[in-house]
Amino acid sequence: MQEKVTPRILPGFQELLPGEQIRFNQMYDTIRSVYESFGFLPLDTPVIELSEVLLAKAGGETEKQIYRFQKGENDLSLRFDLTVPLARYVAAHYNDLVFPFKRYQMSKVFRGERPQKGRFREFYQCDIDIIGGEELDLLYDAEIPAIIHQVFLKLGIGKFTIRINNRKILGGFFGSLGLSDKIEQILRILDKMEKIGRDSVLAELIRSGVPEEKTSAILDFISIGGTNEQILSSLRGMAAADEQFREGVEELAAVTDGMRLFGMPEDSFRIDLTIARGLDYYTGTVYETQIDAHPEFGSVCSGGRYDNLTGYYTDKKLPGIGISIGLTRLFSQLLACGLIVPEASSTAKVLVIPMDRASVPFAAAAATDFRDAGIATDVYYGDGGMKKKMKYAGKCGVPYTAIVGEAEAASRTVALKDMRDGTQQAVSVEKAVEILKNSER
Amino acid sequence: MQEKVTPRILPGFQELLPGEQIRFNQMYDTIRSVYESFGFLPLDTPVIELSEVLLAKAGGETEKQIYRFQKGENDLSLRFDLTVPLARYVAAHYNDLVFPFKRYQMSKVFRGERPQKGRFREFYQCDIDIIGGEELDLLYDAEIPAIIHQVFLKLGIGKFTIRINNRKILGGFFGSLGLSDKIEQILRILDKMEKIGRDSVLAELIRSGVPEEKTSAILDFISIGGTNEQILSSLRGMAAADEQFREGVEELAAVTDGMRLFGMPEDSFRIDLTIARGLDYYTGTVYETQIDAHPEFGSVCSGGRYDNLTGYYTDKKLPGIGISIGLTRLFSQLLACGLIVPEASSTAKVLVIPMDRASVPFAAAAATDFRDAGIATDVYYGDGGMKKKMKYAGKCGVPYTAIVGEAEAASRTVALKDMRDGTQQAVSVEKAVEILKNSER
Repeated sequence: MQEKVTPRILPGFQELLPGEQIRFNQMYDTIRSVYESFGFLPLDTPVIELSEVLLAKAGGETEKQIYRFQKGENDLSLRFDLTVPLARYVAAHYNDLVFPFKRYQMSKVFRGERPQKGRFREFYQCDIDIIGGEELDLLYDAEIPAIIHQVFLKLGIGKFTIRINNRKILGGFFGSLGLSDKIEQILRILDKMEKIGRDSVLAELIRSGVPEEKTSAILDFISIGGTNEQILSSLRGMAAADEQFREGVEELAAVTDGMRLFGMPEDSFRIDLTIARGLDYYTGTVYETQIDAHPEFGSVCSGGRYDNLTGYYTDKKLPGIGISIGLTRLFSQLLACGLIVPEASSTAKVLVIPMDRASVPFAAAAATDFRDAGIATDVYYGDGGMKKKMKYAGKCGVPYTAIVGEAEAASRTVALKDMRDGTQQAVSVEKAVEILKNSER
Repeated sequence: MQEKVTPRILPGFQELLPGEQIRFNQMYDTIRSVYESFGFLPLDTPVIELSEVLLAKAGGETEKQIYRFQKGENDLSLRFDLTVPLARYVAAHYNDLVFPFKRYQMSKVFRGERPQKGRFREFYQCDIDIIGGEELDLLYDAEIPAIIHQVFLKLGIGKFTIRINNRKILGGFFGSLGLSDKIEQILRILDKMEKIGRDSVLAELIRSGVPEEKTSAILDFISIGGTNEQILSSLRGMAAADEQFREGVEELAAVTDGMRLFGMPEDSFRIDLTIARGLDYYTGTVYETQIDAHPEFGSVCSGGRYDNLTGYYTDKKLPGIGISIGLTRLFSQLLACGLIVPEASSTAKVLVIPMDRASVPFAAAAATDFRDAGIATDVYYGDGGMKKKMKYAGKCGVPYTAIVGEAEAASRTVALKDMRDGTQQAVSVEKAVEILKNSER
């Protein structure tokens, strides 16, 4: 007997059981259908790209995480996000595209980081971006959250809030304090407010090099609260505001107006001045999304506006706005907290069971009729007794079985059994089609 | 100005323009929906696996083609097919699965071969397999081609023929001649019959080590022709037949009977004694599929029956049957010969165009109504004159535009324009919904 290899996969890789995979695919399909309902075009870029092209911009953390290797003479890398491939694609196919170019891509990306809870090395990102040919109207900044609003409504995983800010507000405010180079560091400290309290935050700010006389302005700024309109009004009233700051405030006002126009209820979004997004290319509107009952998930959908998507590949200056759902992570979180319960593992609505060989022809014909009516249908062709066959039906969790024996074949009927309540009725194939089509399961 | 990187991808990788991608996705969705209509369960295994696990069985060509690399302490490989990951999955999750286990996986696989016309280094395989827990009824060998028949009917790319054979017939026949170890070599030579003629084939057979006195039996065997029933009858009448041979013939007869039972017309399949399939694990039924008008495509869908899927991972002996469509290659062939014509690149059925800022609220409301009715809807939010906006509409190829100006907003109507014939009518949003829903495009 040959030696066996343990059939294992690497940590940090998600692999689901069929019942889970069905639920994952339902989420995937929901997101895709909303993206398409807004006219986004599909894109599918290669998993493997030339390192020279993919890493034109990268550095630091990204460079360390990337799966990079030599094959023949080529220095290759696996894509680590869908934004860089989009930039490369738009630069390469500029003349074949129509702008504004709205594309979605929902594919796996790869990051070889140390695996930890909720972190994956291979995961799906579900991205939409809108790229302007020259300029891109601010209304698109409002359309993006309106789309995400529809996505999360349709996913049905509970109340959510889209948080919105504008980088120009942060840039203008901290710039006027002479602290432009410390924005992200300061925001990280401010983020600990609830956890460590105002005094400790103050101490950390000073330790990080913020002059003491500027800390109160920062703490005042960050404590601006109230409704979205009240926050905008407070921002407009700020004395120290420079031009970039005012531009950011007016953009934020225009974008939130647009979001209301596009049907978003007031409680579905919130201006949050602490959102900056780590990536250095966001230049205007930025978003994060929280599932209200699960702040521990972190942001499940983030993105923003950038000025120059394709700078590393072309002199053309293409502004854009985009957002991404980290589906693999979100799914694992929903699964872990019971917000998603894997269904019984059946894609079929009905399982046709011929009781014996002689019943196979009528069973096969009934199955064809079911499928022709759009009903996904499995047939059990194995030998064995009814007990074995019904055990299969029970384990795979199919909602209905249609049992066919000698009597049924002779009378052109099936014994249609509702597997949930165990009731069974002898009906014609046409009647069975009607029952199955009207059943909600 | 920084130096620019050329935004290129590697040869042998398929990347499509949006209009092509839409058509590709339609094919992908069609295949998936047929697979699901037969009750197959979705699976999505990792792209990256441990080399030790993935290459347990591989060797020779596979080992050379594989993308393999070190990351940290791990020796990793990209999957080169979907069968090995299935074997690994079934072995690992045996206790969580219900058998017969019917799964589909439609994902990219990776083979770093020298790129040539029609060969890809990264391509989609669309696989179905049925794995028996202990045994697997022969009727499943008939169900597989019946599914593929439905797939190619629905793809609508012309008449096709599923060729079928049984490895036991080949094994029995060549075994009785003492040529078991030369089967594939002999079949490769026989395959050249049309090209180089009978005499040259004869010479090559002898050169390859086939004793001269056995060549006429081989040529007689391979020339068996006629209808499917005639071929079976000739095979049954062969004197030299050993037990394995007879078993193969009876299996083939049972499977073709089943295929008829499952609705396949007689001219949709053909027994072809020259089909062996290269992989050494096929043990019974084998299939290939040809698009009749395009023999140069080669087999677009191949597979067969195997005895022991998971031998490298577990002592359990799991028989199965499976088949695979190489979608990336097929798509590129269909595109090249004009059997697929990329549509205009629009996922939207209608583009709403507000003529000015003041019309945006009514335009956005109309777009929401369209989407709520299930109509994919794009909105052009950019500034600029109508000429610029209509140019966008024309270039993206959306079937309809709904123009909204001051008059339309006031009267709650849209100017619905059929972009094909240029006709335009003022209709209420409800009426527009009705027209759009009933339009076939």
